[in-house]
Amino acid sequence: MSTPNRFKKDKEIIAEYESQVKEIRVQLVEQQKCLEQQTEMRVQLLQDLQDFFRKKSEIEMEYSRNLEKLAERFMAKTRSTKDHQQYKKDQNLLSPVNCWYLLLNQVRRESKDHATLSDIYLNNVIMRFMQISEDSTRMFKKSKEIAFQLHEDLMKVLNELYTGMKTYHMYHAESINAECKLKEAEKQEEKQIGRSGDPVFHLRLEDKHQRRSSVKKIEKMKEKRQAKYSENKLKSIKARNEYLLTLEATNASVFKYYIHDLSDLIDCCDLGYHASLNRAMRTFLSAEYNLETSRHEGLDIIENAVDNLEPRNDKQRFMEMYPTAFCPPMKFEFQPHLGDEVCQVSAQQPLQGELILRYQQLQSRLATLKIENEEVKKTTEATLQTIQDMVTIEDYDVSECFQHSRSTESVKSTVSETYLSKPSIAKRRANQQETEQFYFMVKKKKVLCPFVFIVSYLILIIETISKIFSA
Amino acid sequence: MSTPNRFKKDKEIIAEYESQVKEIRVQLVEQQKCLEQQTEMRVQLLQDLQDFFRKKSEIEMEYSRNLEKLAERFMAKTRSTKDHQQYKKDQNLLSPVNCWYLLLNQVRRESKDHATLSDIYLNNVIMRFMQISEDSTRMFKKSKEIAFQLHEDLMKVLNELYTGMKTYHMYHAESINAECKLKEAEKQEEKQIGRSGDPVFHLRLEDKHQRRSSVKKIEKMKEKRQAKYSENKLKSIKARNEYLLTLEATNASVFKYYIHDLSDLIDCCDLGYHASLNRAMRTFLSAEYNLETSRHEGLDIIENAVDNLEPRNDKQRFMEMYPTAFCPPMKFEFQPHLGDEVCQVSAQQPLQGELILRYQQLQSRLATLKIENEEVKKTTEATLQTIQDMVTIEDYDVSECFQHSRSTESVKSTVSETYLSKPSIAKRRANQQETEQFYFMVKKKKVLCPFVFIVSYLILIIETISKIFSA
Repeated sequence: MSTPNRFKKDKEIIAEYESQVKEIRVQLVEQQKCLEQQTEMRVQLLQDLQDFFRKKSEIEMEYSRNLEKLAERFMAKTRSTKDHQQYKKDQNLLSPVNCWYLLLNQVRRESKDHATLSDIYLNNVIMRFMQISEDSTRMFKKSKEIAFQLHEDLMKVLNELYTGMKTYHMYHAESINAECKLKEAEKQEEKQIGRSGDPVFHLRLEDKHQRRSSVKKIEKMKEKRQAKYSENKLKSIKARNEYLLTLEATNASVFKYYIHDLSDLIDCCDLGYHASLNRAMRTFLSAEYNLETSRHEGLDIIENAVDNLEPRNDKQRFMEMYPTAFCPPMKFEFQPHLGDEVCQVSAQQPLQGELILRYQQLQSRLATLKIENEEVKKTTEATLQTIQDMVTIEDYDVSECFQHSRSTESVKSTVSETYLSKPSIAKRRANQQETEQFYFMVKKKKVLCPFVFIVSYLILIIETISKIFSA
Repeated sequence: MSTPNRFKKDKEIIAEYESQVKEIRVQLVEQQKCLEQQTEMRVQLLQDLQDFFRKKSEIEMEYSRNLEKLAERFMAKTRSTKDHQQYKKDQNLLSPVNCWYLLLNQVRRESKDHATLSDIYLNNVIMRFMQISEDSTRMFKKSKEIAFQLHEDLMKVLNELYTGMKTYHMYHAESINAECKLKEAEKQEEKQIGRSGDPVFHLRLEDKHQRRSSVKKIEKMKEKRQAKYSENKLKSIKARNEYLLTLEATNASVFKYYIHDLSDLIDCCDLGYHASLNRAMRTFLSAEYNLETSRHEGLDIIENAVDNLEPRNDKQRFMEMYPTAFCPPMKFEFQPHLGDEVCQVSAQQPLQGELILRYQQLQSRLATLKIENEEVKKTTEATLQTIQDMVTIEDYDVSECFQHSRSTESVKSTVSETYLSKPSIAKRRANQQETEQFYFMVKKKKVLCPFVFIVSYLILIIETISKIFSA
């Protein structure tokens, strides 16, 4: 029965099994390659991050130095001025000068903050990435050791299955073989029994004796073959049991490896990677957010100073700065001539009538001036309002220049275009200057009006006249 | 009576007056100088501001270019990689790679924003300061014209006062003179009358006649002098009245000039200055605040990506990236030998007893493994927690590096010192690696445990045995 055909069937099974195992072996190698590649990519990414932050640290440091130089250049210039000494003394500055100093302070603050940023990149963030890179490599190596052990165990299991299968096949083949031999013996026995049933008249005794011993021999052989078959049969069943148990356990082991162990292996490689990366990135973010907060604080200080850009106090301070120029002079006193003891307007006759006439003339002139003055005042106020509206127009919002499209490759912003176009500026400025011209005209009219002069004349005359009448 | 002594007194008065007027004249000149100086200081400040922003614009542009170059360098590197193509395709990146791309995006965003800032400085802020400078100069020139007129008017008034005073003095002197002459005439008359009262016995008629005509002459002269005196007296009073009125009006005018007109002149110089400066500074602030907002938005995007740094999804994605390596293989099937139709564990006698014995041995081994496994599981979890605690320690807050002292000349920050000191890092890393070592040991124990293998054996045996007993 062990025909070459049957043997080929066994070979096929073995070839099939071996190809299945080979496939797994290829996968195991590939898995290790993937993990290695993942680690290499991580190391590369961490190297890129280090290079990136090293370069960015340089850029921030250069920016910081440039800002420092800028601040220093103007600080040195102002330190020697009178204003600065004033500033040092009483901190009471003209509001625009105050803005200017705060602007320089802000540049120094930004310079310092960007130096800090540069330092944190270099001495903290990069160090972290370096350590994560070392850790990733170490984790991969350790997980590789475990993987090696796992693969060895898996191969051992697969080998056991192979052995179990082959043993079963062998014992089963032997069992079949034994069964065949037993059947052959049974056939021979049947043949012998059939022959002993033949008519015996022509048999010799000698022949009879020979035949009897032959039957006995066949029976003994059959018994022996029966025992052999039973033994082989049991062996074959045991081998099959073992094969079946190993098959179940092997499948379970392979399943466990693919579903759980592989995941564990990746976990080993990942150990701490995301958390450490998180902390490195958060260090970067903390630095950036803190720079932003500091910058914002500085800008708020400037904004406060800009809110306090105010002409009234500055005018006061300006006049206090030059007391000799702006202090009103002594009153002119009446200088009596040579013992003249009268120092008041005299309204005795015949001057009284003249004074009254003069009073009337002055009063009518005053009335005219009053009306004129009222006009001038109104016009001045209106013009001033127009100018105020012109100069306080809220044209300073540039937020639209900072709109970002969400695409990663957005187009260059067209800032210059967004600022008010040149012709419109020219027109506005022409308008403003025209209004200014008008403002100065009415202002001139106002300050040059002899109103006060006439009024003081009048008051004195009235006082004089009323004294006379009350006397 | 017009003794040199008296004339000197008049001269003194005039000298005093002239010195007082001269002082005012000096003040007027000084006031103009102050206003001119103020304008010069403004123009200088505005020039400084322009220079400052021109230089800062250059610094921002250079910073922007450096950032752009930095981003471009790494973008170009990543654009060709598999990851980037993946990114373009489905935006489904490994979480660390996503962080890296967003980091590069942020640099590009900052580059763009600083270019915008540079542009706004150059084409908006500087232009404004230039215009304010022009305006200040123009305002000063216009206020100077008004001041010139005001000063002329003031001088005219002071001149009038001078004329009034001199006229009064002159008429008063004349009046005194006329009074003296009148008194002289009265004395002569008295003398004449006294003489005519003398005994006339020794007088000749001729003499009598002469004396009478003389008395008449004196009387006539006295009358003439009386009239002259009255006329001069009135003239003197009128002149004094005029002088007193002019004095009052002059003092009022001078007061008006110092208290109101000077303030008005300064207002003219200030016209729009503070408001325009305010707008220029607000343009700067708007640009800075907008840059900050944009920067903050970008950082928030990165922070979000950092929050999503997560190993689970990355593991999933990693395995999906290599399906051939991680796909579980086909189950191993039972390969029956040559027409063997039994494919289950056989428990017929005498195998039954053997199987039961084996079951008992396996079960006792399993119990041991179970206990071991439980231990391993606990230890693994505890170790993992320790590692988790180690890698998630919140050591990334760098805010103390950005503390600013309020002084304008603050000391350089000592950033490197504030980061955890080197020995402490080394200690922490040693600790971490020790824990790692332990983790890998228990992990290895866990994955290499033949638990699954034994359990699957057991299950199959139990199934077989229970089938027999139920049969």
